Amino acid sequence: MIKVKVIGAGGYGGVGITELLLGHPEVELVALVAKTDVGMKMSELYPHLTGFCDLPILTPDEDAAKVPADVVFFATPDGIAMNQARTELEQGAKVIDYSGDFRFSTPEAYAEYARRIGKDPDHKAKDLLTESVYGLPELHRADINESTRLVGNVGCFAIGCILGLAPAVKNRLIDLTSLICDCKTAVSGAGKKPGPGFHYPARYDQMNAYRLSGHQHVVEVEREMQGLCGEEVRLTFTPQVVPACRGILSCIYGTLAAGIDLSAVMDAYRSFHEDNYFVRIMDRTATVGTQDVRGSNFCNLIVDVDERTNRLRVISHIDNLVKGQAGNALQNMNLICGLPETMGLDRPGQYP
Amino acid sequence: MIKVKVIGAGGYGGVGITELLLGHPEVELVALVAKTDVGMKMSELYPHLTGFCDLPILTPDEDAAKVPADVVFFATPDGIAMNQARTELEQGAKVIDYSGDFRFSTPEAYAEYARRIGKDPDHKAKDLLTESVYGLPELHRADINESTRLVGNVGCFAIGCILGLAPAVKNRLIDLTSLICDCKTAVSGAGKKPGPGFHYPARYDQMNAYRLSGHQHVVEVEREMQGLCGEEVRLTFTPQVVPACRGILSCIYGTLAAGIDLSAVMDAYRSFHEDNYFVRIMDRTATVGTQDVRGSNFCNLIVDVDERTNRLRVISHIDNLVKGQAGNALQNMNLICGLPETMGLDRPGQYP
Amino acid sequence: MIKVKVIGAGGYGGVGITELLLGHPEVELVALVAKTDVGMKMSELYPHLTGFCDLPILTPDEDAAKVPADVVFFATPDGIAMNQARTELEQGAKVIDYSGDFRFSTPEAYAEYARRIGKDPDHKAKDLLTESVYGLPELHRADINESTRLVGNVGCFAIGCILGLAPAVKNRLIDLTSLICDCKTAVSGAGKKPGPGFHYPARYDQMNAYRLSGHQHVVEVEREMQGLCGEEVRLTFTPQVVPACRGILSCIYGTLAAGIDLSAVMDAYRSFHEDNYFVRIMDRTATVGTQDVRGSNFCNLIVDVDERTNRLRVISHIDNLVKGQAGNALQNMNLICGLPETMGLDRPGQYP
Amino acid sequence: MIKVKVIGAGGYGGVGITELLLGHPEVELVALVAKTDVGMKMSELYPHLTGFCDLPILTPDEDAAKVPADVVFFATPDGIAMNQARTELEQGAKVIDYSGDFRFSTPEAYAEYARRIGKDPDHKAKDLLTESVYGLPELHRADINESTRLVGNVGCFAIGCILGLAPAVKNRLIDLTSLICDCKTAVSGAGKKPGPGFHYPARYDQMNAYRLSGHQHVVEVEREMQGLCGEEVRLTFTPQVVPACRGILSCIYGTLAAGIDLSAVMDAYRSFHEDNYFVRIMDRTATVGTQDVRGSNFCNLIVDVDERTNRLRVISHIDNLVKGQAGNALQNMNLICGLPETMGLDRPGQYP
Repeated sequence: MIKVKVIGAGGYGGVGITELLLGHPEVELVALVAKTDVGMKMSELYPHLTGFCDLPILTPDEDAAKVPADVVFFATPDGIAMNQARTELEQGAKVIDYSGDFRFSTPEAYAEYARRIGKDPDHKAKDLLTESVYGLPELHRADINESTRLVGNVGCFAIGCILGLAPAVKNRLIDLTSLICDCKTAVSGAGKKPGPGFHYPARYDQMNAYRLSGHQHVVEVEREMQGLCGEEVRLTFTPQVVPACRGILSCIYGTLAAGIDLSAVMDAYRSFHEDNYFVRIMDRTATVGTQDVRGSNFCNLIVDVDERTNRLRVISHIDNLVKGQAGNALQNMNLICGLPETMGLDRPGQYP
Repeated sequence: MIKVKVIGAGGYGGVGITELLLGHPEVELVALVAKTDVGMKMSELYPHLTGFCDLPILTPDEDAAKVPADVVFFATPDGIAMNQARTELEQGAKVIDYSGDFRFSTPEAYAEYARRIGKDPDHKAKDLLTESVYGLPELHRADINESTRLVGNVGCFAIGCILGLAPAVKNRLIDLTSLICDCKTAVSGAGKKPGPGFHYPARYDQMNAYRLSGHQHVVEVEREMQGLCGEEVRLTFTPQVVPACRGILSCIYGTLAAGIDLSAVMDAYRSFHEDNYFVRIMDRTATVGTQDVRGSNFCNLIVDVDERTNRLRVISHIDNLVKGQAGNALQNMNLICGLPETMGLDRPGQYP
Repeated sequence: MIKVKVIGAGGYGGVGITELLLGHPEVELVALVAKTDVGMKMSELYPHLTGFCDLPILTPDEDAAKVPADVVFFATPDGIAMNQARTELEQGAKVIDYSGDFRFSTPEAYAEYARRIGKDPDHKAKDLLTESVYGLPELHRADINESTRLVGNVGCFAIGCILGLAPAVKNRLIDLTSLICDCKTAVSGAGKKPGPGFHYPARYDQMNAYRLSGHQHVVEVEREMQGLCGEEVRLTFTPQVVPACRGILSCIYGTLAAGIDLSAVMDAYRSFHEDNYFVRIMDRTATVGTQDVRGSNFCNLIVDVDERTNRLRVISHIDNLVKGQAGNALQNMNLICGLPETMGLDRPGQYP
Repeated sequence: MIKVKVIGAGGYGGVGITELLLGHPEVELVALVAKTDVGMKMSELYPHLTGFCDLPILTPDEDAAKVPADVVFFATPDGIAMNQARTELEQGAKVIDYSGDFRFSTPEAYAEYARRIGKDPDHKAKDLLTESVYGLPELHRADINESTRLVGNVGCFAIGCILGLAPAVKNRLIDLTSLICDCKTAVSGAGKKPGPGFHYPARYDQMNAYRLSGHQHVVEVEREMQGLCGEEVRLTFTPQVVPACRGILSCIYGTLAAGIDLSAVMDAYRSFHEDNYFVRIMDRTATVGTQDVRGSNFCNLIVDVDERTNRLRVISHIDNLVKGQAGNALQNMNLICGLPETMGLDRPGQYP
């Protein structure tokens, strides 16, 4: 059994990976760590886990929290894992971090990201950036393997956009200066902490765009696109919040390159994602929405061309807490532990 | 007092105009007509109107429904007003129709619209098309006046897009081939009739795009844009439904023309909408959403430029049932009756 | 014009009364006061009020906040008005307080209430308790008149229960030891301040009971029932929260006294509320819910008898922010200012 | 492997059992049958099942639908199983029916139920009523075993009430004439078929009571209570709908018998449900709601006494589609197939 520790267990990212790990046949949870609610059982914090996970929440400073593990998930905000990952690695653990701390391979790339979120641009573990891999199996499966020690899990907005853009950018189906990602997230993407914009009466009939001056996830998307096509790519990204609990719906636009039609587009998408179990390619006749990936690790892509304007349009659907967070993290764990990629994730979710 | 009749009183469009008319100081409701729920009081159908509007629902065929009125609202689906408006006009009424029947000035333009919604493209009252005006006061106020007899009220998606695009297109701030409208509507936009996609359990946590092959409202938007710039305009339009009751959030994109910057854009928008009481211009620092126009006739426009990609981005917010339907219809009524444009509409809505 | 000041303007109670006052023909808003968001315009805090109420939020300490007014609303939590009302009264104002501070006429009665909410049971303005009146027009209209200076507005849960119980208790239709109020509130009842239980993802599909050990509103209900029947009355009260924004649905139960049947019950309810414009009596065939009083000052009562168990069952519907708060407060203002009771309140709300 | 057929596969009850069966280690799905959507794949009807269940929907008349199975679930409305169960039984299948067809052991008891729902009171398979068992493992585990051929699964409202009332009634903790069940259901309890009361705009901020003249589930509850205490029991039952997708919150009241206090009550509840894995007993300090049983087969009971009024109060929480329907049906299947009762059901659900 793989011994697993979760740092930041109390938030939605923490409970999400805990739920998944409880259903994983090769995992034993050994410690749950958080800075708040210390001393409570996980099942007191999340009563649905009563009888399933009654482990106590440990504070990072106590000895029990320092128990060695085979895999450590940092379900923590930016800035935590860069300070604590080294200790875990030195104890022999593999580390998967949810935040942006290890999504970038150079201090400069990290600094651009950090500035967007108002964090210190000086990375605290620069040497580890070289070693860390970007945890997107669908694009980097070859680099996420048993020799990997450190994974930076993908941002929730980024993963839906990257999976939806990659085939078009890699195959130059579209004009690279024309890219737009219009992304609608459900409220759980903002985490567990209450705030004015997520208060039920202020949110139940509210749609709004935010952070128009620049969301941090765009950095990842652009970097990945550049990796696919070899050129600098910039895109317009509009994050929005709608009154739902789970899900991200991203509409992706780009002007078609000369000679590209719907048939070529569909072929490119089907081919690119052929071996990606968790990506489903659908055409414009599909009647699906975010509820159809709710609770599952799938990304459904409706691939379309607006012939009147010669424009690619891809509608990407994920559950922000699964493929956008804990599910993708577990997919990474499976790969770096030499397990089947879909283990513990091969579930359809629950409807309605 | 202006005597008003409402045809199609039973739907959301009907109850919406009824509510507004009850608060209008110059109006007397004389008849409510519908094909269903005939014989019920309006207040039995909508119990919140008990004591405010206890008029019976009349079937179109009965004499009481044929009572002459000064203004007749057709809160009806496509295809009704084109058959019945003439009778009302001949009785001396002015007619305001919610549907697409009178939004177009030529049979050809109507036919393109009709094909998109699977209706007979042959208009049943072609001569009236010449007379009818497009009921968008912010663009056509000069043509909506006491001599007007017939108004085609604007489509709900169209109005938010047109108000958000018009200053940019008129002033050629953007490349006309680059226009995208990514529009998210609340569920009431689909009307009162239950359907699988609007059933609470199927909708409460569901976001989805639909009608990718071509929504009918795009025809209006393109026609209006062409009117503003004198060239054919085509745009990509992506309608989506999110789990909310009221509101349309439209994100509008276009590549900036050479030499245009944020300052020029803001000036153009402020100038264009200077005399439009119901349009508010905001910059990217505004923290507003659809809930801030809920229940009111306002359209809030956040006007922004993404400097990294040289792209205009406008976020348009309306209440689909007010500025997107009954409120705008009443605004038209005020104009064609020679009343102050804001009469009965000068209200902020209720929050939360 | 009546000059009105609102203390605690920033919360839902403050914005609610502000909205209503803006539509009241005899009122002029002279000052908005709060401890947070000081210096912002009301319309910055609540963007839907842009152009309707651009007054600044004043801190209680500044001179402008001390301007004399004819009526002062304390839309504040418990413990504020008891310290500040005297100053306003001495300046010649009439005072209407939302909290429990002035709902009780003796220090002892207040103390029991205060203990339930963990407040100091020692009232800070005991002499004013004698003067203050309980602001429930439907039961105490005779005492709420132009000579009244100080009103304790009713609690939101309490008002729906009292209106639903009063005819039965006054007429001894039921066994006084058998009373149960099972009350479901929407989330806005908890106010504007975000908290874990009102965070959208934690609330969107959540129903729960709370404060089983004793909600403070039961004290008011029991006191009023005692006033109606002359005996001590105790009842079981179960507050619950459901995922809605506005509304309280209260199910009220009591075992019928000997010889009482549905017909006697209906007669008693119709008679008791005959002159109460804002109370509607309906029978068990009514198909109404909280949405039918949304945004209005009405209380709809479905009056029913379960013949199989010989039990009275009343279903009471209010909008917690209107009849349960700001609307009822304005109704009180009308009465103590000698205005028609329904002025500014005679509106049906907006549907859906 | 147990071969399972699902009749009525297209509704929420059908998809619910399908999801659970897909995760059950001893089951093979052999046929999905329904009267609508025939010919579609289950995964076309429910896209989240793509790759998990691509079986076609068969019409009852075709041969493939008549394939013998070890267990047949009738996820059908009242009146179907009574006509079709015999054929399946004769083919050697065990039958579990969701509806009221087999919840009663005599034609007379069935007739009372049938009258409440406007159905023909004449049962079509009276001889089978003697054989069928009431599928509530927590009360009738001894009778639900490998010799059982026919199970009438419990009604969704009934199960939460019965589990919450049984310890009190069996132990005579309460006055049997004082029972009230005030039950709030989420909308999925009404099934998949759209209707005016479940249309998103009509439901999103709506709470209402319905069927005050008598809900059919009360018959089951009373019958079970009578079985526990040996006397006729009648109770007041108030069904309500609130704007949520999943969950039933039932508040259960009864006047305590002489000499019974909270301690005696807690002991009785803990003792009664000691061996019921899916029932959790909590005291009044518990902060749980329906979201804490969402997606799981658990029933959480908060057991409380209101000392001021000497009244028992139990708050019962279930997921109406799991413990209230498919989950309980699978629990029955496990028992009649000789499998561990919790197989395929031992899961916590997903939060938030």
